[in-house]
Amino acid sequence: MPKAEPWRTVSLTDDCTKLRLVDQTRLPNELVWLEISELEEVWQAIKTLAVRGAPAIGVAAAAGLALAARRIMAPDFPEFYQKFCRAKAYLAGARPTAVNLSWALNRMKQAALQNKQRSMPEIKAALIAEANVIRDEDIACCRAIGEAGLPLLENCQSVLTHCNAGQLAAVQYGTALAPIYLAQERGHSLHVFADETRPLLQGARLTAWELQQAGLACTLLCDNMVATVLAQGRVDAVIVGADRIAANGDVANKIGTSGLAVLARHFKVPFYVAAPTSTVDLDCRNGKNIVIEERAPEEVAELWYQQRMAPPGVDIFNPAFDVTPAELVSAIITERGLVYPPFAENLAALK
Amino acid sequence: MPKAEPWRTVSLTDDCTKLRLVDQTRLPNELVWLEISELEEVWQAIKTLAVRGAPAIGVAAAAGLALAARRIMAPDFPEFYQKFCRAKAYLAGARPTAVNLSWALNRMKQAALQNKQRSMPEIKAALIAEANVIRDEDIACCRAIGEAGLPLLENCQSVLTHCNAGQLAAVQYGTALAPIYLAQERGHSLHVFADETRPLLQGARLTAWELQQAGLACTLLCDNMVATVLAQGRVDAVIVGADRIAANGDVANKIGTSGLAVLARHFKVPFYVAAPTSTVDLDCRNGKNIVIEERAPEEVAELWYQQRMAPPGVDIFNPAFDVTPAELVSAIITERGLVYPPFAENLAALK
Repeated sequence: MPKAEPWRTVSLTDDCTKLRLVDQTRLPNELVWLEISELEEVWQAIKTLAVRGAPAIGVAAAAGLALAARRIMAPDFPEFYQKFCRAKAYLAGARPTAVNLSWALNRMKQAALQNKQRSMPEIKAALIAEANVIRDEDIACCRAIGEAGLPLLENCQSVLTHCNAGQLAAVQYGTALAPIYLAQERGHSLHVFADETRPLLQGARLTAWELQQAGLACTLLCDNMVATVLAQGRVDAVIVGADRIAANGDVANKIGTSGLAVLARHFKVPFYVAAPTSTVDLDCRNGKNIVIEERAPEEVAELWYQQRMAPPGVDIFNPAFDVTPAELVSAIITERGLVYPPFAENLAALK
Repeated sequence: MPKAEPWRTVSLTDDCTKLRLVDQTRLPNELVWLEISELEEVWQAIKTLAVRGAPAIGVAAAAGLALAARRIMAPDFPEFYQKFCRAKAYLAGARPTAVNLSWALNRMKQAALQNKQRSMPEIKAALIAEANVIRDEDIACCRAIGEAGLPLLENCQSVLTHCNAGQLAAVQYGTALAPIYLAQERGHSLHVFADETRPLLQGARLTAWELQQAGLACTLLCDNMVATVLAQGRVDAVIVGADRIAANGDVANKIGTSGLAVLARHFKVPFYVAAPTSTVDLDCRNGKNIVIEERAPEEVAELWYQQRMAPPGVDIFNPAFDVTPAELVSAIITERGLVYPPFAENLAALK
């Protein structure tokens, strides 16, 4: 990433009047920064995946809500709060499955309620401040994940990652890539294998791009080539992010993760999951209780293509996520340290 | 497939003046037949994958060489044979991994040598005849593979296949799909899961298309979604083709096959390889001796796309094939019947 200024994938501008974010739909072909402030623009950015990655979505939504709150004209708190909640519900609907989205919006609601005795300008300022706190906490959390994961990579020359759980998915550092960036800061540059991650190609478009920007060696490969590099002994560890971690350690993450875990086990390569503790859902007993979103077949048959790549009318299965059984996970890297099996016990102890 | 006339993916025309083949680069959007006769056109068709699939390549190369031989001007056999061998070597260089290419070309060489006492027109006619024999043998061989594989699918509702080892990969029937077509002929229609097979999407473009033409139910999925359908118990067997089978049973096939075999083993689903015995290379002790073709990075980063899908300059790993260790193979389906482990012994007995 450019060293000249601190890179923040998503953040309020310094004057706190706009939300500034990388338009991830334009990568890797163009680096376009969006500066938006209207509520509808923020909703659109989340909906169209201009901003994606659970942590980044949460930060964007909080900032968008703070900006919207500043424009609310209301004589008293109850009327302000009613309009505020309407804006919050609207943003929450942009991607209803992303846990961090509702989590961040609920933090903003708490901030509003905690300040309700204060003047309207003070409430609005408190909300801007809270959005910035959420952003800064995300940076600190990802950095802590990086620190926690560093010892695991000490003797590694190369790692393989899936999808994008890098800084584009958060504000800085990312989750799965955080230990890799921190290792680089300390003079240990790892070689990263990035699988392209069909159907939306986050590995090819985003991970390969951000590693290249960071000056890290990266080899891109198709998802079905992973077994070959594992068999060749070219990968010392696999490291991925997570969308939700059940109480027993089952990990819901981008489709393809569970197959990767089976391959890693077969080739005796450790399989690490890096995620903030907010991703651990103790109310979810195991992966069977995680609903897997199925997405449009056009993503497989048409998207990115100049012409159809599958015959019209063909049945298509397009799950967005899968569940990796806990037994295939070597360790979970969180901002509070490493969690090893037995996960049911050790994840519960974490909270 | 159109029932009106016998479908032949690749064949000499009835008057034996041209090689007629489906341009597989145009599927699934258009069914275009190429009619070619120049040696360079045949080389080009193989190189650019207009014709692909080990059996189809062999048939195309034999026919192409027969057509080229017919145009050789030479006063005697030695000069004819020298030019013939030059043409043969040229075609053999189009693709390195598939054994059928050199196997078919060597059969043509034998035919030339066997007829060397005869007149030049007789030699040329014998070569055309040999090319047609190779084609007809391929049809019979694929049908026999289908018969041999039928009992394995008796209790199956659904199978998963990789890449395209269907009739588009041969002259008729194909290899991996032959038992499925024969089951259909006998009133047992299987549901076929076809993975798309990046980077060239033979599963999406070819397998989904030909199964649809045949009226068989097919579900297309991305390569990284295979673990999910296996985990869900939706696949009763995996069946794939082969480009080369080593003496110990190691199987070189389209990249992604070995990972699929690991997943099948993990989920306790049988993993079958269907191939003609000509694919078995007893001179090749094991998979380590099989050269794996690495193809252009553009196939991963650019091909099919409206714009680059990976940043310029990114390192890309693009092997076309991989080797599946014999220990992961449940059985090899050949035209001479089923071959079970121990493969070293049972493959040798076959020849």
